[in-house]
This record gives sequence, C-alpha cells and structure tokens, in this order.
Amino acid sequence: MVNIKMIIEYDGSNYCGWQVQPNGMSVQQMIEESLFELTGERIRIHGSGRTDAGVHATGQTANFKTSSKIPPEAFSKALNHKLPDDISIVSSSEVPEEFHARFSAKGKRYRYVIFTRDSRSPFHENRSYRTMKKPDVAKMASAAVHFKGTHDFKGFMSSGSKVEDTVRTISDISVEEKEDVIEIRVFGNGFLYNMVRIIAGTLLECGYGKLDPEEIPYIINSGKRENAGPTLPSYGLFLDEVVY
Amino acid sequence: MVNIKMIIEYDGSNYCGWQVQPNGMSVQQMIEESLFELTGERIRIHGSGRTDAGVHATGQTANFKTSSKIPPEAFSKALNHKLPDDISIVSSSEVPEEFHARFSAKGKRYRYVIFTRDSRSPFHENRSYRTMKKPDVAKMASAAVHFKGTHDFKGFMSSGSKVEDTVRTISDISVEEKEDVIEIRVFGNGFLYNMVRIIAGTLLECGYGKLDPEEIPYIINSGKRENAGPTLPSYGLFLDEVVY
Repeated sequence: MVNIKMIIEYDGSNYCGWQVQPNGMSVQQMIEESLFELTGERIRIHGSGRTDAGVHATGQTANFKTSSKIPPEAFSKALNHKLPDDISIVSSSEVPEEFHARFSAKGKRYRYVIFTRDSRSPFHENRSYRTMKKPDVAKMASAAVHFKGTHDFKGFMSSGSKVEDTVRTISDISVEEKEDVIEIRVFGNGFLYNMVRIIAGTLLECGYGKLDPEEIPYIINSGKRENAGPTLPSYGLFLDEVVY
Repeated sequence: MVNIKMIIEYDGSNYCGWQVQPNGMSVQQMIEESLFELTGERIRIHGSGRTDAGVHATGQTANFKTSSKIPPEAFSKALNHKLPDDISIVSSSEVPEEFHARFSAKGKRYRYVIFTRDSRSPFHENRSYRTMKKPDVAKMASAAVHFKGTHDFKGFMSSGSKVEDTVRTISDISVEEKEDVIEIRVFGNGFLYNMVRIIAGTLLECGYGKLDPEEIPYIINSGKRENAGPTLPSYGLFLDEVVY
C-alpha cells in the first residue's frame, strides 16, 4: 500500500461541504468517486478537517492509501480529468505510511474575504462576504493583534460543538485592504468550529465602531459567545494551507 | 431626455459577447431587456466597443437616453435586481447630452491574464489562459516596452477586419507576475480587432524564447500578421477601464 497526499483546491459553492453527507454532494465524495473510477478501489480519503457548505479551499490536504500501480505524482492529473472544474487536485505525492492529513497537521492558514462595494461583482460573487458599509480597516487591524497568542477561544466557537479543550494558538493574523477587498489572514495550530468566521465578524464590528479594539482581550477572556461578533457567512472563507 | 452613463462589470463566459447578435445572448441584450422591464421603454444602449464571446469586463462603459423619471444614480441598483449575477452595473450617473460611450472615449485599459500552473484552478478557470510551460517574465517585460508609442499595428489585427487606419498609440504597457499569475496590462487610445490578444501571444512567444524581445520593432514594422505571435484565447482578456 502506498500512502498518497493530495493538495486540493475547490470552489465550495456547489457542495454541501468537504465531508461525505447523507444528503447532498460533498467534495470528498466527488474525489472518492473519481478515485474509484480510476483505480477500481473503494478508497476512503482523509481530509485535514471539514469545511462547511460554501467554504472554499486553495490548500485543503488529504491522504489515502492505495495498492494501485499509478505513479503517486500522476494521480493529480488523472483525477482532474474526472473531476468537475470546481475541484482541482493541485498535486499528489507519496508520503510516509504514518502520515495522516488530519492528525499530522501542525497548523492551518485561513483567509476571510470581505468585499466592500455598493454593487455586486461577478468576480467576487460567492467568494466573499459583501457589505456596503465601509469599515475602518486600521481599527480592524489593531483589533486583530489581540487575537495573537495562546488563548481559550471558548467564546469564538459556534454552540453545539462538543470540543472540550478550547485553547488554541494563533501565531499570525493580519488584515489588509486592496481597493474594495479586505482580507483577514489567520494562521494557527487549530481552530474551533466557526472560529475564523466569528473572529472575522468580531473584527468587522470593530471596523464599524460597534466594538472597541481594546475590548477584544475582555471578550476573549469572558469566554461568552454573545460577547463576540456575528458568524460571517461561509462563502467568504478560504482554507489556504495546511502545514505539516 | 436624460443621458445616462453606466460602468459595467461582467463575466463573459456565458455570453456571445457584448453586442446584440441574432444567435445567442449578449451582455448588451441582457441590459436592454432589464431596462425595458424597468422603464417600459425600448432603449438602445451604446457600449464603448464590442467585446468578443468569453471576454470579461470590470470597466465596460455604455450610455443610453431615457425619459424615465428614475434618478440616474438609482439605475445601477434597480438594474442589478433584474440582471443575472454575472453582470453588474457598478455605477450609473447623468452625463451631458453629447456624451457617447464609444465616440467620446479617449482611451482603454485592458488586462490579459495568463495562469501558469500544471493543474487547473477553479478560481482562475475561464478567467485566464492556462499554460503549463513557465515563460521567462523578464523577457516578456522587456519585449513589452517595444510596443509603447505610436505605431502602425496592421500586423496585430485579425484578418477580416476592415479598419483602414491601423495606427494606434500605446501609452502604457506592463507585465507582472504574482505567484502563478502573469498579468499584461495595456493602455492605449484605441485597439484593432484582437490586438491585445495578439500582443499577449507575441509577448508569450518571447517568454518561451521563440522570439527575441529585440525582434519586436521589426515585427511591428513588417505589418505582417504572420510575423506576430498567436491570438491568445478570449477568456483571458479583461476590459478594465474606458477613459473619457
């Protein structure tokens, strides 16, 4: 058996998310079906983690084990012939037997895209959250700094999640504006359910002047979901990289 | 009658181009039909120029005259409610009676996007020309310089075009690379049919080493289509701005 790692890019608009679901088509299922067509094997692939319906990825990572004789590097091209245009296997390569896309992950890089124009754009539609109210980006950037470090992010997790250890480390976070596009980039050792989307929503409230950047440490320490900002929509979120 | 100028953004993938055609749906027709729904008037809109099937725009400009009492600025929002997601009216405003989107235009800015990755990307699909062979971007940039100025661009026009005066001025041209994306930006007082796509194809040949950047002046002066590079596909081309 060969263990193969894939880097996967997808536009999540037409999928119920990464993970196989009883109803609706998932990215994982599309790839597993293509692998079956290619190898004749019913292969389960392991993603670095789920992404919700509508969430995009430029660097989702997954691995699978196969006894196929297809050269590891050839899987990307062969799968891309079978997959629809909104999913692309960027690369495939052999990795040591013990590599697991989820359990071996050391960190993840996410990006949240906010589009601030009165009129919609065909080029940003479904790939950003659009707001017609221009936020103060300098305030968002100064608020972002307070998320850096190791904190209990209990208040930045959607209710219903059953994770026990809610301490995570954010080692890098930035807010940048270019014309009508604001990008929030965050790198951490792991993220709670909806954590990036809630952080983005909280930063946006700071940009709107509804929250003060200096309040962020208190909001984090309170551990209360209601003190943080809203969960921004899934379609503005991109999983850009999984670091091993 | 009020004369109204619109700035229009569209993803050209699903259209037969800007201009109304007997077969196929055009961007112009979509907007004219939405204007009819809105005002009850059969209005002809005048674009700054045609764009071919597949070509995109972030700054196409058009004008039309109406006796509707809708405030000029309100047309953009009202039309966007009726138009599909791949067309957006970025702004609408009143202009003097004599303004004509085509005849008043002083210059146009185009962008040609080349994507250089082995695997396709859902985010660049249909919005760039993909090549798996990495060109030498420095060579492309040094070739680009030779296009600057006033030249007879007869050799950079698709055959079949009946334009008589083939002299045009390119006042600005640049080639920039960012990760896997090469962008050629060109600003000029006017362009012959397929001129930007042929310039892009010629620059790419320089990047591949098939043509020498120093040969460009001779290719231009020859006035022969066969000496220039290929016409790159329509879907990599964007009309970014029309200057008045």
